[in-house]
Amino acid sequence: MTENELTSIPDGKAGLTAKIKAGADITHPETIIGIGDDAAVSHYGGGENTLVSSSIFSEGIHFDLTYTPLKHFGYKVVAASINKILAMNAEPIQVTVSIAVSNKVAQQHILEFYDGVHAACDEYCIDLIGGDTTTSRTGITIATTTIGRADEDEIVSRDGAKPTDLLCVTGDLGAAYLGLQLLEREKAVFNANPTTQPQLQGYEYILQRQLKPEAQTEVLKYLKTKQIKPTSMIAVQSGLASEIINLCRASNMGCEIFEERVPIASDTKKMAKEFNINPIVAALNGGEDYELLFTIPLATYEKIKDNDFFKIIGSINAPEHGMNIVMEDGGIIPLGKA
Amino acid sequence: MTENELTSIPDGKAGLTAKIKAGADITHPETIIGIGDDAAVSHYGGGENTLVSSSIFSEGIHFDLTYTPLKHFGYKVVAASINKILAMNAEPIQVTVSIAVSNKVAQQHILEFYDGVHAACDEYCIDLIGGDTTTSRTGITIATTTIGRADEDEIVSRDGAKPTDLLCVTGDLGAAYLGLQLLEREKAVFNANPTTQPQLQGYEYILQRQLKPEAQTEVLKYLKTKQIKPTSMIAVQSGLASEIINLCRASNMGCEIFEERVPIASDTKKMAKEFNINPIVAALNGGEDYELLFTIPLATYEKIKDNDFFKIIGSINAPEHGMNIVMEDGGIIPLGKA
Repeated sequence: MTENELTSIPDGKAGLTAKIKAGADITHPETIIGIGDDAAVSHYGGGENTLVSSSIFSEGIHFDLTYTPLKHFGYKVVAASINKILAMNAEPIQVTVSIAVSNKVAQQHILEFYDGVHAACDEYCIDLIGGDTTTSRTGITIATTTIGRADEDEIVSRDGAKPTDLLCVTGDLGAAYLGLQLLEREKAVFNANPTTQPQLQGYEYILQRQLKPEAQTEVLKYLKTKQIKPTSMIAVQSGLASEIINLCRASNMGCEIFEERVPIASDTKKMAKEFNINPIVAALNGGEDYELLFTIPLATYEKIKDNDFFKIIGSINAPEHGMNIVMEDGGIIPLGKA
Repeated sequence: MTENELTSIPDGKAGLTAKIKAGADITHPETIIGIGDDAAVSHYGGGENTLVSSSIFSEGIHFDLTYTPLKHFGYKVVAASINKILAMNAEPIQVTVSIAVSNKVAQQHILEFYDGVHAACDEYCIDLIGGDTTTSRTGITIATTTIGRADEDEIVSRDGAKPTDLLCVTGDLGAAYLGLQLLEREKAVFNANPTTQPQLQGYEYILQRQLKPEAQTEVLKYLKTKQIKPTSMIAVQSGLASEIINLCRASNMGCEIFEERVPIASDTKKMAKEFNINPIVAALNGGEDYELLFTIPLATYEKIKDNDFFKIIGSINAPEHGMNIVMEDGGIIPLGKA
C-alpha cells in the first residue's frame, strides 16, 4: 500500500464491504462465515473447517516495479495472503495466484514472479494449486486466494474481544512504510539524475520489511503451546490504527493503547527521524506490516508476560470509552486522528 | 476476450502454465489435482471433494465499459467462473469476487457491479463469501475464485478422452464473438459521430451472449438422468478450437470434427455474413462462449442422440491422426489453422 491508500482508513472500505455483504444471501450449509472477516469459513465435511481469503494487488498502488524485483513481489503476495488465514488462527495450506500483464511483459518476467511465489510456498509449506494468467491493457494486477484449515473451535474471528482483554501485536510496526519512503526517495533522486546510485546501505531491515515481508506463523504455535486461544484477531495490513478500529468495531468494543508500548524497531525510528516523520504516526498508519493484532484474556498475563513474539500495547474496554491512544506526554487522542 | 487475445491460442498460455506447474510442489494430502485443469481438486474431509478455480478479467481486454453495463459484467464474471467448476462435472456453491478500481470510479459503480454479482449468485444458487476491494492506478480488474463440490467418482478432468469417444459441445458457438464485433462497430460509429444512435435492434441473441452469458448447468443434470459420466470435459472459454486442442493434448489423443456439425445460431450466421466473416471461423476461434466441451463413450449414442442440450461434433481418435476439422467441401484442415 502506497500513499494513495494511506488516507482512506478505514470507513470507505468498511462501508463498501458492508453494502456488498448486505446483498450476499447465504444459502449453502457449507458456508459458516461469509464476507467481513480476514477469511470466510466453510465446512465441507470431515473434522475441520476450511478458510478462504482473496486479495488483489495493483501495480502503481501496491507495488512499483522500479524498485520491486518481481521475484520478491511473488514472495510478498503469498506471505501477505497467508497472513489473513493465520489471522483466523488457522493453518494455510493452499493458494491460487493469478496474474494479468500487458503484452509488453516478457514471459521470463512472469516466471520470475512465480519463482517468488514458489519460494514462499516452499517456505510456508503451501501448495500452489491454481491461478489464471491473462492479458491486461497496462500494468500488472495480481490476485490470490488462500485456503487454510482449522478445527472449528480453534478459529478466531475479529468480533470476540471483551472488556479487560489485552490488546497485543506481533513484531514491530511502521518499518515497511519507511522502507517504502526510502525507496521512493531514491527513485526520485535517480529520476532527477540517472547517474547516481541508490543509497540503501544500512537500511536493510526496513527494506526487507517492505520488499520481502514474512508471515506470522510462529506466534500461533507459541500461543498453542501456552494453551491460549485469542478472543479476537485481525491481520495488520492497512496500518495498526485502522486494524484496531476494525477489530474494536467488529467486537463492539472500545480500547486504550499506549504510545510507549507500540513496538517500533530502532532502524524504523532512525529512518523516521531522517524523514522528519513522528515514528508513532508511521507505526499507526503505515500499512503493509503483515503482523497480527489480537486480544487475549487478562488472566493469561502471567503466562505470556516475557514472550518474544508479541507486545501488549493496551487493553479492550467498553465501547462508550471510544478507541484512544495515550501519548507519552499524557495526551489522549482518538485512534485514526493520531 | 477481445481481439488482443484471439491470435495467441493456445501454446503461449499452455506453455506458461506448464512452467508454473513445474515449480509447484504438492505437499499436502488435501491436494488431489493442482494446476492444469479447469479447477483444482482437494479433499478436506467428509464424503465429497472440493473444487477451486480462479479467474482474472482486465478492462480493455475482457470488457469495455463503453458498452458493457457494470451490472451485466458482474453477472458475467460469475457465470464465466462457475462454468469452470461445471466443467469438472461438479456443483459450484461459493465464489469470492475481488475488484481493483481507480479512485475515479464512484462507489455507486462498484455497487452496480456487485448487484450483477448478487444477481448471478441468486440465479445459480451460489454464496458470495468474500473478495477484496482495492485501488488500481487505471482501469478495473476483477478476480474471482469459485468453489464447488462433487463426489470423487463424479469428477471429470480434461485428460480422460479415449478413441471412438464422441466429442460433444453444448449450445452454439461464435455468438459472443459476433456480439462483440457488433458492439465494437457501433462504438466506432459513435466515436466518429456522437449524435448517432447505436443500431442494435434485431441482434438481441448475440448481444445477450456477449453481455450476459449463462453457465451450463442443465446439461450436467441431463447427463446424470441418463447415467452418463463424460470421459473428459473442458470449459469453452478461449474458442472451440483452442479448447479441443487443450482437451486432446491433455488426453494425448487426436480428433476429427465436422464443420457441418458445429452448432452456430442463425443470428450468428446472419451477423457473420454482414461482417464478411466465415461463421465457422467465428465458431472455432471466437471465445467467450462459456459452453462445455466433453467426450462420452460411443456406446451411449442411442441414449443421447435426440437430446436438446448438446451436439456431437466429431469423435476422438489416436494421437497420430492429429486434430482435424473436415470442412463441408471435403477438405481436411488441422485445428488451429481453420
